[in-house]
Amino acid sequence: MPSNAKPFALSSRACRTRRQPISGLMAQAVENPDVISLAAGLVDDATLPTAEAADLLTAMLADTGAGRAALQYGTTKGLLPLREALRAHLVHLDGWDPAHIAATPDDLVVATGSQQLLFILGDMLVDPGDVVIAGWPSYFVYTGTLEALGAEVRCVDVDDGGMVPEALEALLGRLDAGGALPRVKIVYVVSYHQNPTGITLAGDRRERLLDIVRRYSRDHRILVIEDAAYRELTFEGAPPPSLKTYDPENRDVALLATFSKTFSPGVKVGYGLLPRDLVEPVVLAKGNHDFGSANLCQHLVLRALETGVYQRHVKRLCRRYAEKRDAMLAALQTHLGDLGPQVHWTHPTGGLYVFLTLPEAIETHSRSPLFARALEEGVLTVPGEYCYAADPTRTVPQNTIRLSYGVCEPDRIRAGIAALGRAVAHVLENP
Amino acid sequence: MPSNAKPFALSSRACRTRRQPISGLMAQAVENPDVISLAAGLVDDATLPTAEAADLLTAMLADTGAGRAALQYGTTKGLLPLREALRAHLVHLDGWDPAHIAATPDDLVVATGSQQLLFILGDMLVDPGDVVIAGWPSYFVYTGTLEALGAEVRCVDVDDGGMVPEALEALLGRLDAGGALPRVKIVYVVSYHQNPTGITLAGDRRERLLDIVRRYSRDHRILVIEDAAYRELTFEGAPPPSLKTYDPENRDVALLATFSKTFSPGVKVGYGLLPRDLVEPVVLAKGNHDFGSANLCQHLVLRALETGVYQRHVKRLCRRYAEKRDAMLAALQTHLGDLGPQVHWTHPTGGLYVFLTLPEAIETHSRSPLFARALEEGVLTVPGEYCYAADPTRTVPQNTIRLSYGVCEPDRIRAGIAALGRAVAHVLENP
Repeated sequence: MPSNAKPFALSSRACRTRRQPISGLMAQAVENPDVISLAAGLVDDATLPTAEAADLLTAMLADTGAGRAALQYGTTKGLLPLREALRAHLVHLDGWDPAHIAATPDDLVVATGSQQLLFILGDMLVDPGDVVIAGWPSYFVYTGTLEALGAEVRCVDVDDGGMVPEALEALLGRLDAGGALPRVKIVYVVSYHQNPTGITLAGDRRERLLDIVRRYSRDHRILVIEDAAYRELTFEGAPPPSLKTYDPENRDVALLATFSKTFSPGVKVGYGLLPRDLVEPVVLAKGNHDFGSANLCQHLVLRALETGVYQRHVKRLCRRYAEKRDAMLAALQTHLGDLGPQVHWTHPTGGLYVFLTLPEAIETHSRSPLFARALEEGVLTVPGEYCYAADPTRTVPQNTIRLSYGVCEPDRIRAGIAALGRAVAHVLENP
Repeated sequence: MPSNAKPFALSSRACRTRRQPISGLMAQAVENPDVISLAAGLVDDATLPTAEAADLLTAMLADTGAGRAALQYGTTKGLLPLREALRAHLVHLDGWDPAHIAATPDDLVVATGSQQLLFILGDMLVDPGDVVIAGWPSYFVYTGTLEALGAEVRCVDVDDGGMVPEALEALLGRLDAGGALPRVKIVYVVSYHQNPTGITLAGDRRERLLDIVRRYSRDHRILVIEDAAYRELTFEGAPPPSLKTYDPENRDVALLATFSKTFSPGVKVGYGLLPRDLVEPVVLAKGNHDFGSANLCQHLVLRALETGVYQRHVKRLCRRYAEKRDAMLAALQTHLGDLGPQVHWTHPTGGLYVFLTLPEAIETHSRSPLFARALEEGVLTVPGEYCYAADPTRTVPQNTIRLSYGVCEPDRIRAGIAALGRAVAHVLENP
């Protein structure tokens, strides 16, 4: 910029919009291509359905009418037949009696991944200074987004059963006592195989959690955002019913999901089943953002659902991710299993993540000896500190690590965990 | 909503986000399928490149590596080879010496249509109460978006040469005198075949316009957004160089364009060449919106550019739209040419729109006798009042109409203008 040019005067929102810490990590992965990355939450390249997509697109574009429809503008809310298919898909996943839930295709909105709906819901509800409640830890891209919107993110403990209802109730009680309840707008729950822990919210907590939120919805309704991005990647046991199941009047829960993890991130198709009175604000906002996500991708996903290609693909994916999770858990037992009870990790029944806790004395952040040593040993992981929002009342644990088995082959996963084990041993021996 | 449910407490932005008036019109078009719509700015269904897209996608997905890359996550900023191709494309369109302009692929951002960049640029620069300057008339979806962001939109006359530089200078002078200059953030210019008038900003106004904006960039730089969505749909004469051409240091102008009008709206790929110090704020915001637009569509557009399929398609499109424009202009002469000098219309050299002015006594709004009569006669058009932002210092003309020749066949265009002519005659005879 030449010296005589004044800077732009950015908006207050722009000033709050910061680089996500994870982005530096991703740059490190690119700069160190030989390092085994257990960091990225990407999906396994080898599983991407190239042949299936080719068949579906060829059939679509060979039919001139269908092809033109896919290449023409769509609607802001999303392709109606896709929204109909998505409603049927949700009914199937939850085993709902179709009459159980007051949700029609009109209550579904298609978006550029579920992230776009997360953003818009935040933007439509949060004014600077408002409060959003999330898990401790939680999906950090969204908590970072909320902070850019000006939200104060307050956190609720997550244990092996997910967000702890009693802790949520206690937090809401404290906020109420402090006069902050009118500012509480959203409770954000990743309800299946949560990023970063892999933990699923227990079935018997779901209705209780909703009841608590309803009880505190005194001045206004507090929205529960149920982020079900990893739900269909369940490969052990049956997943519990969605939180949405306990919202038959369709008024409290925005259920969000995406085809990024289960079909293809490159099509960037996500969707949300929204409380009816939020549909209009969300669609109006999306009209200002882009007046509709890529129609071609919506037509592709619709065909994948209608032909059963999608459902078969998800089954294959689950088998593959189960194998990888098994490889990671076994390698953790082999290489970190003898370090005593202070070292433990989660045992996900689906999704892409294992969350590892080390002794409190071992720091895991990106300037830590362990992080440096792990890179030397040839493995990159996500420091757990990134996964905790900036709750002003809490201290971020420094001894956790997020591990993803999404991208690597089982052999690389084993080698990566072995490298991490060597790094941990080294740091323990050289305190 | 059950009676015991409290409403959500929407954000102040949500409260400012209103239904675009055009949406009611589009619903009317859907409800009256037999009516000839000269309203929608959609592209001609018959021109959509289904066979070309099929060939490109088949070749891409048959190559496993390329196919997986397209179905995997991309980057927030957009596919690097596409950004390289887009830079080359811009250099070609403007005939720049590649060294002429300090713009690299790093200064390009790919988005979900150019609308997403319009939104994000507004969001990164505008705080409620800030001022954005646009044409009178201008592209109303964006001025509506700006109003949702809290901007006060102030307008500058548009004549046959586009935005009038002297009028811009006078407005900036008045804002300065009133102490409002520190709040002026953006000057928005649709530089080619403007929606709604079809008018192109004259070549000899471009540098002057930029100079004026620079002169008033005293406290901070005022961004010029150059919306070039219709540039490549030039079918008569050579279009003038972009405004960006007069910004060789890449600091004042955000040049936005899209493949929606020239290739396929269904791929929703737009892009912007941004002043370097705006790239980071825009990319960070886009990270919060969706961390990248559909990668599959970006790969498709890249192949269309690289193979020349895109360039050939644009040539065919221009021939087709030229024929339709000719049909519309001839029909206007036939059916409205004898109504005296108070009735006149623009003569676009490209794009999709003709702007019609009627005698001041004839109102064109959606509750007007003319609008109702035109629907009865079988034609739907856009009341010109929608195309003027809510500038508090101006009175919206009530006697203009936007006509689009984008969608209909020439015969339907002629029939639609004949119907409009009958409606106008009827209203003139029954005042």
